[in-house]
Amino acid sequence: MQTELSTQLGAEHALFGFTPFPAVAAALTRAGGFGVLGAVRYGAADDLRRDLDWMAAHTGGLPWGLDVVMPAKKVESVTEADVEAMIPEEHRQYVRKVLDRYDVPDLPDGQDGGWRITGWMEEVARSQLDVAFDYPVKLLANALGSPPPDVIERAHRHDIPVAALAGSPRHAERHKEAGIDIIVAQGYEAGGHTGEIATMVLTPEVVRAVAPLPVLAAGGIGSGEQVAAALALGAQGAWLGSVWLTTTEADLGSRALTRKLLAATAGDTVRSRALTGKPARQLRTDWTDAWEPGEGPGPLPMPLQGLLVAEANSRIQRYEVEPLLGTPVGQIVGSMNSERSVQAVVDDLTRGFEAAVARLGGIAGAG
Amino acid sequence: MQTELSTQLGAEHALFGFTPFPAVAAALTRAGGFGVLGAVRYGAADDLRRDLDWMAAHTGGLPWGLDVVMPAKKVESVTEADVEAMIPEEHRQYVRKVLDRYDVPDLPDGQDGGWRITGWMEEVARSQLDVAFDYPVKLLANALGSPPPDVIERAHRHDIPVAALAGSPRHAERHKEAGIDIIVAQGYEAGGHTGEIATMVLTPEVVRAVAPLPVLAAGGIGSGEQVAAALALGAQGAWLGSVWLTTTEADLGSRALTRKLLAATAGDTVRSRALTGKPARQLRTDWTDAWEPGEGPGPLPMPLQGLLVAEANSRIQRYEVEPLLGTPVGQIVGSMNSERSVQAVVDDLTRGFEAAVARLGGIAGAG
Repeated sequence: MQTELSTQLGAEHALFGFTPFPAVAAALTRAGGFGVLGAVRYGAADDLRRDLDWMAAHTGGLPWGLDVVMPAKKVESVTEADVEAMIPEEHRQYVRKVLDRYDVPDLPDGQDGGWRITGWMEEVARSQLDVAFDYPVKLLANALGSPPPDVIERAHRHDIPVAALAGSPRHAERHKEAGIDIIVAQGYEAGGHTGEIATMVLTPEVVRAVAPLPVLAAGGIGSGEQVAAALALGAQGAWLGSVWLTTTEADLGSRALTRKLLAATAGDTVRSRALTGKPARQLRTDWTDAWEPGEGPGPLPMPLQGLLVAEANSRIQRYEVEPLLGTPVGQIVGSMNSERSVQAVVDDLTRGFEAAVARLGGIAGAG
Repeated sequence: MQTELSTQLGAEHALFGFTPFPAVAAALTRAGGFGVLGAVRYGAADDLRRDLDWMAAHTGGLPWGLDVVMPAKKVESVTEADVEAMIPEEHRQYVRKVLDRYDVPDLPDGQDGGWRITGWMEEVARSQLDVAFDYPVKLLANALGSPPPDVIERAHRHDIPVAALAGSPRHAERHKEAGIDIIVAQGYEAGGHTGEIATMVLTPEVVRAVAPLPVLAAGGIGSGEQVAAALALGAQGAWLGSVWLTTTEADLGSRALTRKLLAATAGDTVRSRALTGKPARQLRTDWTDAWEPGEGPGPLPMPLQGLLVAEANSRIQRYEVEPLLGTPVGQIVGSMNSERSVQAVVDDLTRGFEAAVARLGGIAGAG
């Protein structure tokens, strides 16, 4: 399954996988795809360096990439404490109220709230890049708009193409103007931050808007027939995120969460601002319900909401409080019904792709 | 472009077109597709008979179908007046207030509000069927769940397969249990009534849920590459509605509305309860905005909302009050940028399909 882009990047299959887990990213690369490690969870540069060392040691020279979260607009020397101070007391009280309602225990003394918003701050993302450029990274992706011009230039000096996510054709055009090399068209049905335009409509519109730049289709892709559909729409590859969450290499840190993912149907996700302040698709839970219109004070804008709920999410996850337990995931969660290795998923994707193409060939030939 | 289903129904291409315009349905059938005429606008059986006479005379023995709106749940002898009486005065006042704000003129004396809800009443749909069975209808579609069992049996006695729209796999399974022959899986991005699951995810889930019943994919399909994607997802054909609205054979009754459709982008639609009380995708207008949460009293449930706003919509359309002027349409409206004949659309669809299949064959062959 090769396109111009996958050939250029040195991957056997035009299957790009975004994941926060090094074991998943490396396994995908070894299986002939292109693993992209999400760096947002890394606060300290040393942690990232440790995992990039591991990636380099476990990918046998095959290509992989890194996804950072870097806003194009520079906010000078804003600290986490500055952002903390902007959170209204009403919202803090509401978080406590919801957690109390479900008897969510406190974290043990001395444990902080785990992931906070540090990974979303430009300063942190820049220190991650200082590390990343020491490694044979073959793609730099940015989940939050175009990165600043100097970052794009720096990547290009290292011969690393830069990809950025877009939820609308106009958004994609702005990326092109900013010098981005690859557009990831992220449809409504995707997990995480999404716009309102579905992959079926978004992909060909973005392909036309940014031609001749290559486009990867994201959202609603978890099977070979969906990969075939994405490529039929003009994409040069599929960008998959959700499907890896139930692979044996993934480490969600909660068996209860894995069980919820395996049991969920396509209708069990919701686009909610509960997690970050921007609409992000995730499992629908009592927690997301608590942030719906008419319930409580409603979500704060990014990045306040992320900071507001960080500790709450750590507590919910640590103690596996099932009614509140969720994760970003796309509508394909309805088809994620068994735990499989990354290699088994890739085998299914490539076989399903070949079968769909053969079926289409028959339909075209018949008429 | 032939599938088992299109062959069985006698169509050259697996392209099914839903339209309220006989000229469009007949032109599609003549172009090798399968035109399906929407009957909801017909109040009087004689009007339907006149148009079916015309359809029969202009399709040269090629196959076409009829789409009715019939609820499975029987509501005994409810009249339009009974429904009228259930509408709160607050809602009537709000409609007047919005219309006044935009100086929408009254209809001329003696003109009624045009289409009301009569086409949605089972009694009316049954009288339409009495007419339909006199004609060589090759498919009976129902837009509102499964039709009552006796209607399915009656169609089957006439050797007419029955299709029903579904927005979720469970919904599709219920259709199968009710004896439906063909499922139209209608994705989130479609015009008109839709659920929340996008076509990319919904189609393969419905195909698996109702196998071996054939599935048509609806929502997000207006180009040959989107047809290829739909068939890659396992559908036996594409069901297109929006794309016909800007064909030269369509008669929207308002040039201003046609101009709005040609100018709209994929982001200019909204799933709103403003039209019927159930979420239906349509152009976003000041009218749909007026029914969003936080504005006015909010929409009533079906069928009250449809009756409440029927005259208002007639006035808005007759006087082409542009800020309020809308129509059901899907997200592909962003690609509907020129007026073309139905034949030209079909030519584009079949050529685009062949090109997409050839491109996919190259990708599969390369890897």
